[in-house]
Amino acid sequence: MKHHWFEHFLERIADRGRELLGLRHDGASQAGALCRALLSGRGEASGTALSREVLRAYQDMDRNQRRTFFRLLAREFGPAPEAVRAAAEEYLRSGSAEALQRLGEVVEPPRQELFRRINRAPNGTAALVAMRAELLDFLRDDASLQPIDADLRHLFASWFNRGFLQLERIGWHSPANVLEKLIRYDTVQAITSWDDLRRRLAADRRCFAFFHPALPDEPLIFVEVALVHGMAREAGPLFDLNAPVLDPTGADTAMFVSINRTQRGLRGLSFGNFLLKQVLEDLQQEFPLLGTYATLSPLPGFAAMLRAAAHNEAGDFTRVRLEALLAEFREPLRQSTNVDHPVDALFTLLDHIDRTPRDVLTAPLERLALAYVGLMAPHADGYDPVANFHLSNGARLERVNPFADLSPARVEESYGVMVNYRYEPDDVVEYHEAFVGEGRVMVSAPLRRALQRIEPLWVKGAAIA
Amino acid sequence: MKHHWFEHFLERIADRGRELLGLRHDGASQAGALCRALLSGRGEASGTALSREVLRAYQDMDRNQRRTFFRLLAREFGPAPEAVRAAAEEYLRSGSAEALQRLGEVVEPPRQELFRRINRAPNGTAALVAMRAELLDFLRDDASLQPIDADLRHLFASWFNRGFLQLERIGWHSPANVLEKLIRYDTVQAITSWDDLRRRLAADRRCFAFFHPALPDEPLIFVEVALVHGMAREAGPLFDLNAPVLDPTGADTAMFVSINRTQRGLRGLSFGNFLLKQVLEDLQQEFPLLGTYATLSPLPGFAAMLRAAAHNEAGDFTRVRLEALLAEFREPLRQSTNVDHPVDALFTLLDHIDRTPRDVLTAPLERLALAYVGLMAPHADGYDPVANFHLSNGARLERVNPFADLSPARVEESYGVMVNYRYEPDDVVEYHEAFVGEGRVMVSAPLRRALQRIEPLWVKGAAIA
Amino acid sequence: MKHHWFEHFLERIADRGRELLGLRHDGASQAGALCRALLSGRGEASGTALSREVLRAYQDMDRNQRRTFFRLLAREFGPAPEAVRAAAEEYLRSGSAEALQRLGEVVEPPRQELFRRINRAPNGTAALVAMRAELLDFLRDDASLQPIDADLRHLFASWFNRGFLQLERIGWHSPANVLEKLIRYDTVQAITSWDDLRRRLAADRRCFAFFHPALPDEPLIFVEVALVHGMAREAGPLFDLNAPVLDPTGADTAMFVSINRTQRGLRGLSFGNFLLKQVLEDLQQEFPLLGTYATLSPLPGFAAMLRAAAHNEAGDFTRVRLEALLAEFREPLRQSTNVDHPVDALFTLLDHIDRTPRDVLTAPLERLALAYVGLMAPHADGYDPVANFHLSNGARLERVNPFADLSPARVEESYGVMVNYRYEPDDVVEYHEAFVGEGRVMVSAPLRRALQRIEPLWVKGAAIA
Amino acid sequence: MKHHWFEHFLERIADRGRELLGLRHDGASQAGALCRALLSGRGEASGTALSREVLRAYQDMDRNQRRTFFRLLAREFGPAPEAVRAAAEEYLRSGSAEALQRLGEVVEPPRQELFRRINRAPNGTAALVAMRAELLDFLRDDASLQPIDADLRHLFASWFNRGFLQLERIGWHSPANVLEKLIRYDTVQAITSWDDLRRRLAADRRCFAFFHPALPDEPLIFVEVALVHGMAREAGPLFDLNAPVLDPTGADTAMFVSINRTQRGLRGLSFGNFLLKQVLEDLQQEFPLLGTYATLSPLPGFAAMLRAAAHNEAGDFTRVRLEALLAEFREPLRQSTNVDHPVDALFTLLDHIDRTPRDVLTAPLERLALAYVGLMAPHADGYDPVANFHLSNGARLERVNPFADLSPARVEESYGVMVNYRYEPDDVVEYHEAFVGEGRVMVSAPLRRALQRIEPLWVKGAAIA
Repeated sequence: MKHHWFEHFLERIADRGRELLGLRHDGASQAGALCRALLSGRGEASGTALSREVLRAYQDMDRNQRRTFFRLLAREFGPAPEAVRAAAEEYLRSGSAEALQRLGEVVEPPRQELFRRINRAPNGTAALVAMRAELLDFLRDDASLQPIDADLRHLFASWFNRGFLQLERIGWHSPANVLEKLIRYDTVQAITSWDDLRRRLAADRRCFAFFHPALPDEPLIFVEVALVHGMAREAGPLFDLNAPVLDPTGADTAMFVSINRTQRGLRGLSFGNFLLKQVLEDLQQEFPLLGTYATLSPLPGFAAMLRAAAHNEAGDFTRVRLEALLAEFREPLRQSTNVDHPVDALFTLLDHIDRTPRDVLTAPLERLALAYVGLMAPHADGYDPVANFHLSNGARLERVNPFADLSPARVEESYGVMVNYRYEPDDVVEYHEAFVGEGRVMVSAPLRRALQRIEPLWVKGAAIA
Repeated sequence: MKHHWFEHFLERIADRGRELLGLRHDGASQAGALCRALLSGRGEASGTALSREVLRAYQDMDRNQRRTFFRLLAREFGPAPEAVRAAAEEYLRSGSAEALQRLGEVVEPPRQELFRRINRAPNGTAALVAMRAELLDFLRDDASLQPIDADLRHLFASWFNRGFLQLERIGWHSPANVLEKLIRYDTVQAITSWDDLRRRLAADRRCFAFFHPALPDEPLIFVEVALVHGMAREAGPLFDLNAPVLDPTGADTAMFVSINRTQRGLRGLSFGNFLLKQVLEDLQQEFPLLGTYATLSPLPGFAAMLRAAAHNEAGDFTRVRLEALLAEFREPLRQSTNVDHPVDALFTLLDHIDRTPRDVLTAPLERLALAYVGLMAPHADGYDPVANFHLSNGARLERVNPFADLSPARVEESYGVMVNYRYEPDDVVEYHEAFVGEGRVMVSAPLRRALQRIEPLWVKGAAIA
Repeated sequence: MKHHWFEHFLERIADRGRELLGLRHDGASQAGALCRALLSGRGEASGTALSREVLRAYQDMDRNQRRTFFRLLAREFGPAPEAVRAAAEEYLRSGSAEALQRLGEVVEPPRQELFRRINRAPNGTAALVAMRAELLDFLRDDASLQPIDADLRHLFASWFNRGFLQLERIGWHSPANVLEKLIRYDTVQAITSWDDLRRRLAADRRCFAFFHPALPDEPLIFVEVALVHGMAREAGPLFDLNAPVLDPTGADTAMFVSINRTQRGLRGLSFGNFLLKQVLEDLQQEFPLLGTYATLSPLPGFAAMLRAAAHNEAGDFTRVRLEALLAEFREPLRQSTNVDHPVDALFTLLDHIDRTPRDVLTAPLERLALAYVGLMAPHADGYDPVANFHLSNGARLERVNPFADLSPARVEESYGVMVNYRYEPDDVVEYHEAFVGEGRVMVSAPLRRALQRIEPLWVKGAAIA
Repeated sequence: MKHHWFEHFLERIADRGRELLGLRHDGASQAGALCRALLSGRGEASGTALSREVLRAYQDMDRNQRRTFFRLLAREFGPAPEAVRAAAEEYLRSGSAEALQRLGEVVEPPRQELFRRINRAPNGTAALVAMRAELLDFLRDDASLQPIDADLRHLFASWFNRGFLQLERIGWHSPANVLEKLIRYDTVQAITSWDDLRRRLAADRRCFAFFHPALPDEPLIFVEVALVHGMAREAGPLFDLNAPVLDPTGADTAMFVSINRTQRGLRGLSFGNFLLKQVLEDLQQEFPLLGTYATLSPLPGFAAMLRAAAHNEAGDFTRVRLEALLAEFREPLRQSTNVDHPVDALFTLLDHIDRTPRDVLTAPLERLALAYVGLMAPHADGYDPVANFHLSNGARLERVNPFADLSPARVEESYGVMVNYRYEPDDVVEYHEAFVGEGRVMVSAPLRRALQRIEPLWVKGAAIA
């Protein structure tokens, strides 16, 4: 529908707003003035006209103006210090419910109400999500903007509540403007063409995404599922464009082959675990024969870790420890490289992994990956993000697969190793609690045996269950 | 879609939750324990299972148990006093941004996060809205529950942001489960039957409503519009089931004949002004010939006010003032009643208004209504709620219509008087500011002249523009 | 979407059409001229403008003009006799494929192409269906119009092919303009109010209909299903507005309680059997516990038959035979009436059936109904239409239920007797063939035994299987 | 929805059908037997099971079996000769309406009813359309199959009536499984990639298609529209992926840049003119500033014609006539080629048209194209199909554009010449009649003047208006 008349009306209100405010429409301070007007009674009366005007002003700014604008938001639209001070004193004095409530009110930054009003504009939600994506860039070197981010994140956590998200299946019948988002955002297993995409949406595949009503064409997070026989240990056959399409009703295993979030502006909000739980349920409903649910996941920090360890004489994971882990494989490593020291021999082979006989490297890579995944918390944040995501969702570490994917990117990141995390519907709550509450990593029986063979020396506090 | 398997899964999680918590499912304290579990890590892992369980527990409680449950929520899920105290002191000491942020965090009641998690359950939003409707009842005699209401209202203001509401046209093609809501909730002009409803959705009518994606079959607020020639001054013809259906493309006037909100649980949230603004715009778009937008609105407190004044010797509006307002009409009133005192004569006629000659009462009723609407703020909240709604939305008081609706309910409430409020697209922002900012009631030129004839004695501070 | 411009364009074309044809828009001959233009090249070029004009002319005619118009269609738009004659002679001479094809072409009435072109107009299909409904009235006393009916029926059989019909579930969520059709067209079990309708669409009910894409709001035929425990033998509980809503997942029986067609203009087209087959399948899919599929059907001609027999001394079903069928019950009938002759006694009781003890009449009514349904072909068309519909669809006669519905209409039609026809998915093809091919009525085992007790004298040729 | 149970049911019916018929499922004769069963009472009872079985049998046949099957259909499912003979004789004898109707009935091939029943199967319509596409291949060397084609075409003309087609806009929001059809079927201006497609669906483009409800993902015919300033004379800018997207609300001209049909099986059915008429109307509605509607169309037979003429001494268009048309340009042609004879000089230049100075060839190409388009009917069917389509739809020949598209395919087909046909809403009916009725080609004023300069010798009977 076209709303010529209303467009005109909006223009007029906005023009008059600018005029009354004595503004020219030329940058951050003007946008700030519009924000003030929007928070005033005038904002009430103008319907969505001023909200829209604020967004337009933001669109028209260049990067520097936006930075200035964010600083203005940080400076001017926070809680009023005197009011907070007075309310804090009153609360400390009286401790009453009224004083507490008053304190709660004055402590909430007016920015939050400002953003709620901006959200009224057409496509306001999308604009605010994009705004936060940009803000995150500025945040890297301007910590004073952090309160703005806290406000947006607080609002988004409320607005993007699981209760408002809709799980939808995506298929070849879906709109192209949705499908192109899959191509754009699949960074785990890049989609190389529309033909690639079509194969990934064939009868033996499923793709599900969460959508929010205010962003109707934007899958917020999506998961690609392959319905197969047996738990896959290699990426190649799963992403072969010419692989025959199987009858999914006979599949016994659902592989979650790629999970991606799309909106940088929603960083830090966790809908991933809800997505997997519900997809699992929907798959079980559609395919009663399914018994196994697992991922074939990357191991992003593995290669970097090994390389660092090789030059590292201190910390948890040192060259010495590498050596100890490889002790058992010293002989075969030496034989295939003529290099004596097992760590050097290892890297000699890893540097040309595509030409290395698999039988030499398989066992060492598995052991090193186990040491990496199961026993250490090498990153600042603990486990690597993929492991952390699945383990905290209640999956268990099922299998380590050397030579699972020898594409350049994967070799760079993990020397081609990939991992199966497995979801057992009956165990997810218990496993989640073991991991989150007690730091215990749940692993499969074969892996448990393999871990016991790694010298106790290496086993950190984290129990293996 | 049926999710037998998932149902089972949810049951199992919930059973195990209860078991672990050592609970029987028998009342408020159990529900409280579930709430605690939901706010814990277990709530994270269970997906939506625990949210659902909390709602089920609530459903199963009787009224007393619910009151107990609300008290528990008020008592246990507020901010931790020690934490607030410590943060307040730290802020007063340092005044730093970090201290402010910390204060903001501890001041937010954990109840808000609890409600956000409950919202994840299927139909969680509807359940929370219903919960607040019930809470409002309890609030009347238990002020300690007020913080819960503040939390819910805060969340709802965020969730039901205009940006998330969808304007939809309702017609005879709409689903019956939506249409029955119109029948249930139209309290301004009660819909007496499905035939009545069908006439109200005929070609010369429009009905628009705001919907929220989480409550798909619930119009939150709706407005019925009649497309007519000239501004209507009577309800009868507008609601006559057998009135011929006019060609709407020739209409010059859109009458907003009934505006209703449906959800008691959303009390205090204002989407009404957004609705009227957008409906006005859509109508203009569809019918370019439309020039006049007006309501035919009730005057809810008018009759009660007159009756009170008749017995009232003090305050703003007394028997003496009634007498003064009627002075000019003393003679005709006496002639048609044989009652000497004009106030008594007036009520003699009003008590049988359906048998009273209109020419005797028309002028006095108009004057009294003007005195009531334009000059006084007789209710605790100021203007009567309907007047307040339209005036603060930027309408002006256009005309007072005695004998506009002689149905028993309307006679009881306003002796049959109804009012036209008029919306001029070009003036709404200015009028809104005049009313809200300066308390000036905008009226039409004829009304302004009529008001000048009422003795200056009566004119309160409120300016008439 | 409004197409003002196009409306104007159509008007112009149509005006010019009339002008060129030297017409005033005043009746059947004008409509005939428009039809001729529509069949010409001008019709090609005008898009849908002339089609629309023909329909408008039809709308504007009164009943007499329409009769005249139909006669004109019968007279002028049939095959050209000379052409048919020439083609017939050529075929008889040569017998060639070309001559046959030519004959086929000239024998097809140009009316068919005319109707195909009228169908291009907006809502053309609906208009043609309505036109046939009216034509059927005229046909009763004007057999010359029969070829028009043959043409329309031929086209409709093609257009309303099962392949183009869509089965849709109707529920309380369906549009009111669809639901009101159920109220209007349920003649088997009249729907008395919107509340009645809502109960019939509750959780323990299903309603399915066939729709055609060109008549989007018109259910062509619909069936109401009650999900119950055990095969119902009474209408009362099924249509009780206050009956508790059962959990349908536990039901073992699906009762088809009302099947109705809506479009008189589609008379003679059989989509009924497709509907029941597919509904049966959908129900089985949704409710795996369902084991029994049956109807509770009226017996429309039963009472009339009995009354006729009572006064009838000749033909298949005479007073003598009534007497023989009742011989066994002579004594109880006499005792409860003091009337000696069993036929007279019977009618004494039937005339006040609501006050008659059920034990006296149950056995005689069952026997008489069996005699009526199972053994005779009393109507000109054979079985009564309901029996014929179900038996030819492959149902078997399962049970006769005296006192199943004592509403006045049902007493008038069948003295309250209703019948269960039962569908066994495995047997429908075989039963259909037995009935249609060999005239054998399939009945349940208990009925077979009951029938054997009726004197062989009565058993007509029709085998009972 | 999955219909496991029903699938099973269908299988069982079908198996039993085969068994009863004593068949193995191995070829054309078996399919023929299934067809016979489908036309019998058994077909009635089986619902859609047998229809489905026939289609499955057809799918399983190889090409030879299908040919055999079609021959069987031609031989066995035509009208019964004795019945036709008898009915023809009776008609010739009596001439009665009954005899005529009887004749009509027996002349209709039972194949038509067979196809109507096949159409009941799931996706039956799509299967029949595909069947005809294949039949058209066989028809080329087996004329005995022609009656089957006549039957299918007759049915399709009825089923794909304009009244059942839905005009839909196609955009980047459309499902990918619809969009890929555009890529597959655009043969006029091949779509080279999904990026190309996206540009063609940008804000300054429109794409509309006709859909039939029984083929929901198949655009039957589609037109691509570019909204531009001024009538385009070149393809290049219109199909430049990097061309800036214009604001369509300012456009004054709608260019129909590619019109394509997709279903070979629907050959001979004309929905094209309905499509253009309605698209024109919708565009006018959306963009009131549009004043010009035109195509940029290929001239498929032009180059072949010129080449043939160059070697042709007889017929309408000979080397001599070519020479006469070129006489005026002899000198410049000679100068730029050093070839004396103008025809030879022309081809010297045409053979390297991409390197030829445009000023030399522009005037000769325009003249030759005019001679080709406007004056001759060189193909067996008269005008070339594109010209015929637009002229018979009421367009006029507006402009000839040499060097409009120098892509290899276009050079091969027309030496890069393209034509603008223009639609004037007010004139289409009149122009259609002039062309179809009287063979007059309507041309623009400049073209009319240009044509007058071509020697009268060349002007055939066809008038130029």
